Amino acid sequence: MKEFILGGARSGKSAFAQRRATDSGLGVTYLATAQAGDAEMAERIARHRAERPGHWALVEEPLALAAALRAHAAPNRCLLVDCLTLWLGNLLAVGDAALAAETQALLTVLPTLPGHLLLVSNEVGQGIVPVNPLARRFRDEAGRLHQTVADRCDRVSFVIAGLPLTLKDCPA
Amino acid sequence: MKEFILGGARSGKSAFAQRRATDSGLGVTYLATAQAGDAEMAERIARHRAERPGHWALVEEPLALAAALRAHAAPNRCLLVDCLTLWLGNLLAVGDAALAAETQALLTVLPTLPGHLLLVSNEVGQGIVPVNPLARRFRDEAGRLHQTVADRCDRVSFVIAGLPLTLKDCPA
Amino acid sequence: MKEFILGGARSGKSAFAQRRATDSGLGVTYLATAQAGDAEMAERIARHRAERPGHWALVEEPLALAAALRAHAAPNRCLLVDCLTLWLGNLLAVGDAALAAETQALLTVLPTLPGHLLLVSNEVGQGIVPVNPLARRFRDEAGRLHQTVADRCDRVSFVIAGLPLTLKDCPA
Repeated sequence: MKEFILGGARSGKSAFAQRRATDSGLGVTYLATAQAGDAEMAERIARHRAERPGHWALVEEPLALAAALRAHAAPNRCLLVDCLTLWLGNLLAVGDAALAAETQALLTVLPTLPGHLLLVSNEVGQGIVPVNPLARRFRDEAGRLHQTVADRCDRVSFVIAGLPLTLKDCPA
Repeated sequence: MKEFILGGARSGKSAFAQRRATDSGLGVTYLATAQAGDAEMAERIARHRAERPGHWALVEEPLALAAALRAHAAPNRCLLVDCLTLWLGNLLAVGDAALAAETQALLTVLPTLPGHLLLVSNEVGQGIVPVNPLARRFRDEAGRLHQTVADRCDRVSFVIAGLPLTLKDCPA
Repeated sequence: MKEFILGGARSGKSAFAQRRATDSGLGVTYLATAQAGDAEMAERIARHRAERPGHWALVEEPLALAAALRAHAAPNRCLLVDCLTLWLGNLLAVGDAALAAETQALLTVLPTLPGHLLLVSNEVGQGIVPVNPLARRFRDEAGRLHQTVADRCDRVSFVIAGLPLTLKDCPA
């Protein structure tokens, strides 16, 4: 079972994903992609940590997501990735070749993973066109990634004000 | 009955809320949170005024929303608040203590209010991450507020291109 | 049959509209509103061209959309306009009089058109309020246009991560 959970900033998407992980009844591994590059991000990471159950296993991987998924996905285990947007931003900072290789690796590994997978990401494409070319690039890459990930998942939800809207639900 | 109506800029959320107020069949009090700080805002206020029925009672309260709700909510009356986003912006301009106190007061008063309540707000979290730290702060506060308000309302709608999408509907 | 397809940047709205056009079973005319003003836009135009069937008829019209619709709409033909947002941006660059005249002309011609019409546009109003006054103006004009177009169409879809959400569906 593969679920993709998309939502705006502070939409409650992470809390919803955590609820889905708990409801799975499986042991949970939380895969964090954030890097504490500045105080604001460090505070966000700390808040996310405080909000999730302390007994969940934690894996931190800012770049090599496909390899981390392959290493940690397991039958009867729930793997929660929060979030794809930060991972994409980390890759963009590294360079185009890394971005292309890692997103391709993710799309290749996705269909092969056992267990319950939850992927969280940020909707960033519904505002005005950004003036900054890098922001436009990021928005385009995020939109393309969301389309291909949604296509490969069984269930896709969009979270608004803490309330999930089901965009796709393929019975197993 | 408490309704929360969320939508993007010029999504038709105010018109939808006004239709809901009219359809309630109750006397309507319109609670405006806007402050005419500049010409653009003054023009928006004037347009909103022209669009709503002239016989509705009007209350203007940019900051002390919880107190205004307590004073004006009544059984067999519909109270329409337009909008929470401007109120939040007004509070952010005053300072963190006012913001924390007033948002807490709103969440406390909400479950106690009689009559029909309609709360309108702006979705601001589905674009690219803003460069400006204050804009990021505003976006975070708005998102958190929307989650807690949605949680305390019976009905939540998201308006796109004038068309409401029901995100939550708890039969009374 | 008139369909309005709205979505964020890289949401898959164009691909969805193209699928709808193909599924109509009719001959398709693709009406492009883009102008290759810079390299980035030229690349987008080239990508769109590569993604759509080569046998579709192509009409390019950046400004006089109503006249082009009148000229090319026909019974048993599908006319796909991609997209209203670029057309609106082109008009804003020309000036307020052109904008007012052309949007009014579009709303007037819409109900009179024969055949199957697909109109694509970008949601731009769900991010933070833009600092730039022109961006705010564009966002307001786009939101207003989307409301009136949605009102005049039989079917309205909002596309997120490649997945369409039906906002309106009036059986013929």
